[in-house]
Amino acid sequence: MAIKNNSRAVHLCFVWLLVSTVSLQTSDGHRWKKYPLRKPTRNLVLYFHDVIYDGTNAKNATSTLVGAPHGANLTLLTGKDNHFGDLAVFDDPITLDNNFHSPPVGRAQGFYLYDMKNTFSSWLGFTFVLNSTDYKGTITFAGADPILTKYRDISVVGGTGDFLMARGIATISTDAYEGDVYFRLRVNISLYEWY
Amino acid sequence: MAIKNNSRAVHLCFVWLLVSTVSLQTSDGHRWKKYPLRKPTRNLVLYFHDVIYDGTNAKNATSTLVGAPHGANLTLLTGKDNHFGDLAVFDDPITLDNNFHSPPVGRAQGFYLYDMKNTFSSWLGFTFVLNSTDYKGTITFAGADPILTKYRDISVVGGTGDFLMARGIATISTDAYEGDVYFRLRVNISLYEWY
Amino acid sequence: MAIKNNSRAVHLCFVWLLVSTVSLQTSDGHRWKKYPLRKPTRNLVLYFHDVIYDGTNAKNATSTLVGAPHGANLTLLTGKDNHFGDLAVFDDPITLDNNFHSPPVGRAQGFYLYDMKNTFSSWLGFTFVLNSTDYKGTITFAGADPILTKYRDISVVGGTGDFLMARGIATISTDAYEGDVYFRLRVNISLYEWY
Repeated sequence: MAIKNNSRAVHLCFVWLLVSTVSLQTSDGHRWKKYPLRKPTRNLVLYFHDVIYDGTNAKNATSTLVGAPHGANLTLLTGKDNHFGDLAVFDDPITLDNNFHSPPVGRAQGFYLYDMKNTFSSWLGFTFVLNSTDYKGTITFAGADPILTKYRDISVVGGTGDFLMARGIATISTDAYEGDVYFRLRVNISLYEWY
Repeated sequence: MAIKNNSRAVHLCFVWLLVSTVSLQTSDGHRWKKYPLRKPTRNLVLYFHDVIYDGTNAKNATSTLVGAPHGANLTLLTGKDNHFGDLAVFDDPITLDNNFHSPPVGRAQGFYLYDMKNTFSSWLGFTFVLNSTDYKGTITFAGADPILTKYRDISVVGGTGDFLMARGIATISTDAYEGDVYFRLRVNISLYEWY
Repeated sequence: MAIKNNSRAVHLCFVWLLVSTVSLQTSDGHRWKKYPLRKPTRNLVLYFHDVIYDGTNAKNATSTLVGAPHGANLTLLTGKDNHFGDLAVFDDPITLDNNFHSPPVGRAQGFYLYDMKNTFSSWLGFTFVLNSTDYKGTITFAGADPILTKYRDISVVGGTGDFLMARGIATISTDAYEGDVYFRLRVNISLYEWY
């Protein structure tokens, strides 16, 4: 490949250098300095639906308690301390819209635990296993979920298949809920990196 | 350092720019467009061996149930719902070949949980702690593991030591198993990034 | 923007290419070859304080057992096998110095589990939820924690807010402890990447 226009190539290189510096700053004594935020390069909105086992809904439940603190049981979320210590495993359907009965495009699988005594707050580790005509692959998430906050960000820590090497954040909001049994979460996934 | 041959340097820059664009595409309205896959830059195949406590093998067991749904116990994997809700902690030997008795090069440590009612499927969070003459450091994995699929990919989410900043995927296959007690997993680790 | 000095731009490009190769090596048959370590671009030292529920300290405890192996209970860490299989959920205060009574700058939230029979060792999955005048955002960690080692590295797998896209390692050391009830951990966070 011959280079026809050297100055144009140099120009491109120079622009490239400027762009690169955003993510390649070395320690300069100005910790916490803000750099311009890159635009997410991929955006995806999905819903998932969690139906917690409560002793009566074994057939329909998509999640169940598997751990709880001393004195609590595994049938119902603990009544005291805002469910502190409750640990649930889930396999929830993922849909493109907020309708529980829409055809699922995948499953949200993993666990959550309640980790605060004085408010409702949880920690999530789970994976979106997507299998539709549009995308096949997985996205794995981890992070703190302060449930009562309208929008809360958790981290996208990895991906496979169509989402190979995905990184970014997922903004979660509680789209609907019914008592302690049904939760519908809206997840706005912003990927800043992927292959 | 003097640049002797400008056009060659420019040429290199230009090639570099082309390569860079693979991972630096900004949103262009063509979501899910496929880019050529980078070759993994490091590849490693290891085996680990999981011996689940079943009430009789306390001495040899390398993993044990620590959580289970209401009505189940912690001695045996639940007989119904494909072990749904069972949570196990493990500390498994890692070997270079498929022989359980080969000298271990490290330990696979973490947890898995069964998360589907209608088939065998799990979610994994664990770390390879490697300590041999060849490599010292850790690789941490997370993701969904649909056990009955021959090859399934989970994410490499981080690393330390010789694997500082590792990212990539691990392709897991069940190399052998005996009932519900022994599982040998082959892990083909592909790192696309590291320091 | 006009390029005034082509040779300088070319020079910069060339240096850039040299630097880039450090992280862009393709498989070259020399696995495990060491490359010069990049300097962390952000460094942060914080302390967090874990007070484990032991049956008597419900009011002050910041963590509690929620899973344990067959035969153990959830009131006290198991006396045998170095707590193997114990799983705890925590919500610990984070401070800037080693004083438990210093004003917290955030909360460390998540879980740990004990995963070795023949020594004290754990696996951690948790998030620093920081909320102070200096920084707002989260950092999520995962990895093996061989407790009796003076300094042990775990992975920073993601971040949000001021720590968007954070990656790196956290070097943990046990700064103080009192029996099985109180642990103070010093965390030296080295971020090699962030936005």
